[in-house]
Amino acid sequence: MAKSPENEHPVKALGWGATDTSGHLSPFKFSRRATGDNDVRFKVLYCGVCHSDLHMIKNEWGVTKYPIVPGHEIVGVVTEVGSKVKKVKVGDNVGVGCLVGSCRSCESCNGDMENYCPKLIQTYSFPYVDGSITYGGYSESMVADEHFVVRWPENLPLDSGAPLLCAGITTYSPLRHFGLDKPGTKVGIVGLGGLGHVAVKMAKAFGAHVTVISTSEGKRKEATEKLGADSFLVSRDPEQLKGALGSMDGIIDTVSADHPMVPLLGLLKADGKLILVGLPIKPMEVPAFPLVMGRKTLAGSAIGGLKETQEMLDFAAKHNITADVEVIPVDYVNTAMERLMKSDVRYRFVIDVGNTLKAE
Amino acid sequence: MAKSPENEHPVKALGWGATDTSGHLSPFKFSRRATGDNDVRFKVLYCGVCHSDLHMIKNEWGVTKYPIVPGHEIVGVVTEVGSKVKKVKVGDNVGVGCLVGSCRSCESCNGDMENYCPKLIQTYSFPYVDGSITYGGYSESMVADEHFVVRWPENLPLDSGAPLLCAGITTYSPLRHFGLDKPGTKVGIVGLGGLGHVAVKMAKAFGAHVTVISTSEGKRKEATEKLGADSFLVSRDPEQLKGALGSMDGIIDTVSADHPMVPLLGLLKADGKLILVGLPIKPMEVPAFPLVMGRKTLAGSAIGGLKETQEMLDFAAKHNITADVEVIPVDYVNTAMERLMKSDVRYRFVIDVGNTLKAE
Repeated sequence: MAKSPENEHPVKALGWGATDTSGHLSPFKFSRRATGDNDVRFKVLYCGVCHSDLHMIKNEWGVTKYPIVPGHEIVGVVTEVGSKVKKVKVGDNVGVGCLVGSCRSCESCNGDMENYCPKLIQTYSFPYVDGSITYGGYSESMVADEHFVVRWPENLPLDSGAPLLCAGITTYSPLRHFGLDKPGTKVGIVGLGGLGHVAVKMAKAFGAHVTVISTSEGKRKEATEKLGADSFLVSRDPEQLKGALGSMDGIIDTVSADHPMVPLLGLLKADGKLILVGLPIKPMEVPAFPLVMGRKTLAGSAIGGLKETQEMLDFAAKHNITADVEVIPVDYVNTAMERLMKSDVRYRFVIDVGNTLKAE
Repeated sequence: MAKSPENEHPVKALGWGATDTSGHLSPFKFSRRATGDNDVRFKVLYCGVCHSDLHMIKNEWGVTKYPIVPGHEIVGVVTEVGSKVKKVKVGDNVGVGCLVGSCRSCESCNGDMENYCPKLIQTYSFPYVDGSITYGGYSESMVADEHFVVRWPENLPLDSGAPLLCAGITTYSPLRHFGLDKPGTKVGIVGLGGLGHVAVKMAKAFGAHVTVISTSEGKRKEATEKLGADSFLVSRDPEQLKGALGSMDGIIDTVSADHPMVPLLGLLKADGKLILVGLPIKPMEVPAFPLVMGRKTLAGSAIGGLKETQEMLDFAAKHNITADVEVIPVDYVNTAMERLMKSDVRYRFVIDVGNTLKAE
């Protein structure tokens, strides 16, 4: 018989978890493995609330394994390291993002793209190499192989920096990979939520000319005045679209709701790139004509590798990039999920785990 | 009143043209401009019959201007050059492909990608800068600005080389641009027609490992034994698809009939690229998931710039790449079109214009 979450590993742990598709989160006792030779154990201080946490606790993608402890934007302070660990020492601040494992030997892993490894292991609700299920950062402690732990830059805030571990790398990586990181590049950002608002900051830090593309006028002021976007475009306004036809080198599309691709492809110059980082459920309708006639690219991008995640954090620290966050106590998390469902947050909830999640 | 095709320009010309959507071709008298300072005039020797000629003579894309003289794979011998022409001299063999004009000043033109210039001028059935309509290579003579004329390599056959001006550059350009031109690269070619069979030869010349992807077993022998493909995959066979999952760096998709993208995306490795060079009419259904989770690219590519077309011809000459052709007299062209409609040609008709199209 399989051991219970509380007894399968030697180290007791407390988190907030959900046990069914209601997604309701409550205190949950489980356990974590002992610190292995290559492991870093840390006390969790902050954990961001990603929109995918909301999908996962309700099993909306059909892959959730209950009980689930979500959270993959995890920042903390090291409490123990294994004998072979070189990257960090006790007392250092560290982070863990969406991945805690990969095969370490495939073409993707060898190319520092563990995020595309066919055997990647996600930070929560995913089978680990020992057969147990991974638990995320809505918990007092965390343990991970040092390869999947990043060093926290000195001047990067722990709370507002936490979301960079998902929202930051998810937008930084495609900007870099698809060559949208050159000064003067014309970049569009579709959607102004958790991912989108960080994408604007990243693109601006690269020196791009940034246009926020949104379905309504409502976010114009926020985009241009607060976040520093250079311009704003309402995607449902044919006149505004027409005025921007063929003007962009690339677009980072952060929207997971179904939405049309054709207007976005029209905004691209020849050789322009439309990069999806959201995951619309329904297949998109994509005509061949604009792709062929302008050598345009429709591509996707998912988080980033560990080397690139460290590079992104160092870049964020240097350019003072953080997420705009609302820090909450852990017992507010169910309310936070309800508000997140209504996009009622600017732009990311971060749980103050260190001060509010305590053993009873 | 607009002048008639026969009288609008000073130089008489004879071609084979269509006057309505029946697409029936017959001898057609028109005229061409006098040789301008930058123009190259040449006697047409061979002209390939591209599948788009068939679409255009019947106005299947809704853009045809009748009367139409098709043909954009044109090879001939120079008979006159303008005072400023430096590229070629009388007696040289030359070629003209799909383009005879572009703005020469936009970002695309400045980057040697005249093919993506918003003001590009196609070789036939397209408004020229002087307001007249362009006429293609199913005609005894041709005149074009030297920028849009390519030098014909000495050892490249005129007849079987002609299709390279469209089929060659259309496949060479994406192989080069998307990095599929490295030895050992795993490349798939979808469809084994006029474009596909040249794509196989180009990819092999780059040193790629080439898999032909076809809807039926019928072309296996032809692909592997005659054209030199390394392997063959039936796209409708789930077992064969499964065996090749995640194995390819890139795919050149030459098919213009509607067909599913999902199986092809599945064949790609992480970072793999699916490049359309055909033009399916119906929008494709493209799920976000495989794009995002493997950072895969769906892109298109259309012919190539003039510099690259010259480079391609020189590459073809060096590697003895030509199209497999059936050379026909011009009065066979209507029969050829009927056979082309049934894919009854391996793989390209080429009209022997020089010997068979004569003033009556």
